[in-house]
Amino acid sequence: MAPRALDYESLNENVKKVQYAVRGELYLRASELQKEGKKIIFTNVGNPHALGQKPLTFPRQVVALCQAPFLLDDPNVGLLFPADAIAKAKHYLAMTTGGLGAYSDSRGMPGVRKEVADFIERRDGYPSDPELIFLTDGASKGVMQILSTIIRGESDGVLVPVPQYPLYSAAISLFGGSLVPYYLEETENWGLDVNDLRQSVAQARYKGITVKAMVIINPGNPTGQCLSEANLREILRFCYQENLALLGDEVYQQNIYQDERPFISSRKVLMGMGPPISKEVQLVSFHTVSKGYWGECGQRGGYFEMTNIPPKTVDEIYKVASVSLSPNVPAQIFMGLMVNPLKPGNISYEQFIRESKGIIESLRRRARMMTDGFNSCKNVICNFTEGAMYSFPQIRLPPKAIEAAKKAGKVPDVFYCLKLLEATGISTVPGSGFGQKEGVFHLRTTILPAEEEMPEIMASFKKFNNEFMEQYDDRSGYSRL
Amino acid sequence: MAPRALDYESLNENVKKVQYAVRGELYLRASELQKEGKKIIFTNVGNPHALGQKPLTFPRQVVALCQAPFLLDDPNVGLLFPADAIAKAKHYLAMTTGGLGAYSDSRGMPGVRKEVADFIERRDGYPSDPELIFLTDGASKGVMQILSTIIRGESDGVLVPVPQYPLYSAAISLFGGSLVPYYLEETENWGLDVNDLRQSVAQARYKGITVKAMVIINPGNPTGQCLSEANLREILRFCYQENLALLGDEVYQQNIYQDERPFISSRKVLMGMGPPISKEVQLVSFHTVSKGYWGECGQRGGYFEMTNIPPKTVDEIYKVASVSLSPNVPAQIFMGLMVNPLKPGNISYEQFIRESKGIIESLRRRARMMTDGFNSCKNVICNFTEGAMYSFPQIRLPPKAIEAAKKAGKVPDVFYCLKLLEATGISTVPGSGFGQKEGVFHLRTTILPAEEEMPEIMASFKKFNNEFMEQYDDRSGYSRL
Repeated sequence: MAPRALDYESLNENVKKVQYAVRGELYLRASELQKEGKKIIFTNVGNPHALGQKPLTFPRQVVALCQAPFLLDDPNVGLLFPADAIAKAKHYLAMTTGGLGAYSDSRGMPGVRKEVADFIERRDGYPSDPELIFLTDGASKGVMQILSTIIRGESDGVLVPVPQYPLYSAAISLFGGSLVPYYLEETENWGLDVNDLRQSVAQARYKGITVKAMVIINPGNPTGQCLSEANLREILRFCYQENLALLGDEVYQQNIYQDERPFISSRKVLMGMGPPISKEVQLVSFHTVSKGYWGECGQRGGYFEMTNIPPKTVDEIYKVASVSLSPNVPAQIFMGLMVNPLKPGNISYEQFIRESKGIIESLRRRARMMTDGFNSCKNVICNFTEGAMYSFPQIRLPPKAIEAAKKAGKVPDVFYCLKLLEATGISTVPGSGFGQKEGVFHLRTTILPAEEEMPEIMASFKKFNNEFMEQYDDRSGYSRL
Repeated sequence: MAPRALDYESLNENVKKVQYAVRGELYLRASELQKEGKKIIFTNVGNPHALGQKPLTFPRQVVALCQAPFLLDDPNVGLLFPADAIAKAKHYLAMTTGGLGAYSDSRGMPGVRKEVADFIERRDGYPSDPELIFLTDGASKGVMQILSTIIRGESDGVLVPVPQYPLYSAAISLFGGSLVPYYLEETENWGLDVNDLRQSVAQARYKGITVKAMVIINPGNPTGQCLSEANLREILRFCYQENLALLGDEVYQQNIYQDERPFISSRKVLMGMGPPISKEVQLVSFHTVSKGYWGECGQRGGYFEMTNIPPKTVDEIYKVASVSLSPNVPAQIFMGLMVNPLKPGNISYEQFIRESKGIIESLRRRARMMTDGFNSCKNVICNFTEGAMYSFPQIRLPPKAIEAAKKAGKVPDVFYCLKLLEATGISTVPGSGFGQKEGVFHLRTTILPAEEEMPEIMASFKKFNNEFMEQYDDRSGYSRL
């Protein structure tokens, strides 16, 4: 009998090509071990609540009331909910067309999109148009929609940083386009060299690829760096010269751990450059409720904002968004609450500030603990995590370890991470899942384990690593940066 | 300057080809009129809460508690929430890996998938495997994922009913495949003739198309019919003979308005047919929390269940689902609550039954009011709505109306629906958005307006229609079925 439509050999080849290591072999093995009763520390994905981070109280109160609007008529409601949460719930319910159970407009509720626009204006100092802001089920869905709008086929290329969060490589594979890599410089704290970009574009064009867009992840995932204003200007000038749209993944904009390197949005820099660049460069910026000190990953809320995108294109994006009817409504309210937070004087303000400060300051300390911990290990070096939620240490694997990996039929960093998992329960993602230079090996961990557990985790890592290095030490030198 | 990446002329052509009338010209015009202050009755989309349907109290209590788990420790919680809602909230929170703020497994929480499998087993009498059930952000997302897995390019075809809910045509366009139409017979109460199917497949093959799958929507959207068991057997035998996967859109399985025509799932019929058919035909069935008497559209919850799909394919589908991390967690809990509802003896059982019965019985009466209303209008005939949420009356447009439409540059049924909208505020979708036979015209309305408003709406429709028919009556005959 001929293969059936959903037999493996009949499937869309682009689906087969997709790679997504964040939930790949390591994650699957970790899930197995967990089923067998082993304690696993899941640092493979930036999922703060899964590692014990508590949700912020106020937004949860508001969304709970929106889910149960009949409570608003209950005389006892004030015993469980503060007055400002009740007022905010009424504010958002009034924006819906029938509560959380009704589809919203496919771009999201106009009222929340207006609050997002106001937030962007306050942040950047330039007005933002709610009609150019679309709410999404998490930032990933927005990124995928924009990439599928851009990519026509394999001769369309998108510049993606290496190492990169593999959403980009996966989506480009799925939509049948070509990934054009540009390398971040580990020795320059994962900085971006525009000359290197130019070379990447030239090489791609030589192969007949039309390079249409460039992705930046700022703060970086998995690399944790924050781009400077000067660097962003260079990038935008480059996009102008090369006629590239810029996709700015800015989901970690609240996750900043170094005062000297604040987050600056691509849009602010673009607007500040003036015409012709500010009028010409097409920019789509992405944000989410999953990161920051919110960490509301499971709610799936995000937005994208479009700059210099012609109305006819916006209409096409709206049309395709309509096919999925609407982003989930509860997460739209989380987005509203995130961009339009409590103000001094509100009843819940002090608690909100205490909770959010507690989270961000702890993340800052954990970033430091983790980087320092890695740098104290044999054959491990790690740039400081300036932002985002990850450490991306380089692991200098001895030749004997590389040989042993080869014998086991594993990529060397996968081999290392699997051994780490079996020995310690720490579930990481091998650097090869993000891309890295030939012969150089990394792993990615989040900085999210609970602060009080961090010393033990880093000690357990160090013990494993040093034994591993001992075991494979052939005293004939290590793989080098 | 060359066109930029996101200028209209540079976009993915498949994006431009997508058509989605449910939120098309009519909807956009209705939104404009609403902004101008006109009262609009949105019957363009099956969105019950937007037209005043109240959410079921118990599931909302449970999800509200899950959003605000700190309430579970509050001594006053019992003043606002019944004990069974508190118990259920604890039940679902225990399934999460960190509450609603944590990503779940990309297939959805194992505990909820088990509850879905148990529901399917109770419904059909055959066991179901939770590992073959994936939760999704609404059924549409699941349909899109499966179609993108199947379609390799324009020579891959999918059989789709005409008229059809345009999710299917839109997704097939977006993924660059070919839609192979088969016609439902209006004079046979929108039944499906297998000989007609055979002809559609033969014609497609003659054009070089590999027909890989067939879509059925049961109960039908926009046509409202329920397929009989005999008809489902014929369809499954046909899929077996022609080597087609069957995609069963069963989102309206709880929306049944005629006792003689109950819903029967494709899976139950398939299992009942025995080998080889029951072991060979690949089936994917879709369900949702958006329809039934729940109508929780804005929460975006759904699932698909796979039958006879090989493990390697399931792995590929899992991998691609992972790229979007996880379906939203609150809607997963709604799904659990829907498939595993309250039982007699639970404190909230009586209220739950009263509320859900109230909704379904009112829908049944509204289906009757609407069909009867349409059939009392000049040049309008309408099959009875056996299931789902829609009426799909045929409008026999006089030649003078068709001419007037042509002059206005509009498709005739669009012309009619726009005039209806301007005159009455009733926002419908023209039949051309779903497909119909050449020269025959329809419109789709939901049966969702509040029951007490229904007489007035139907009177307003009748007045408009009869005036329209009067205006364009040239006494020289009408377009005919």
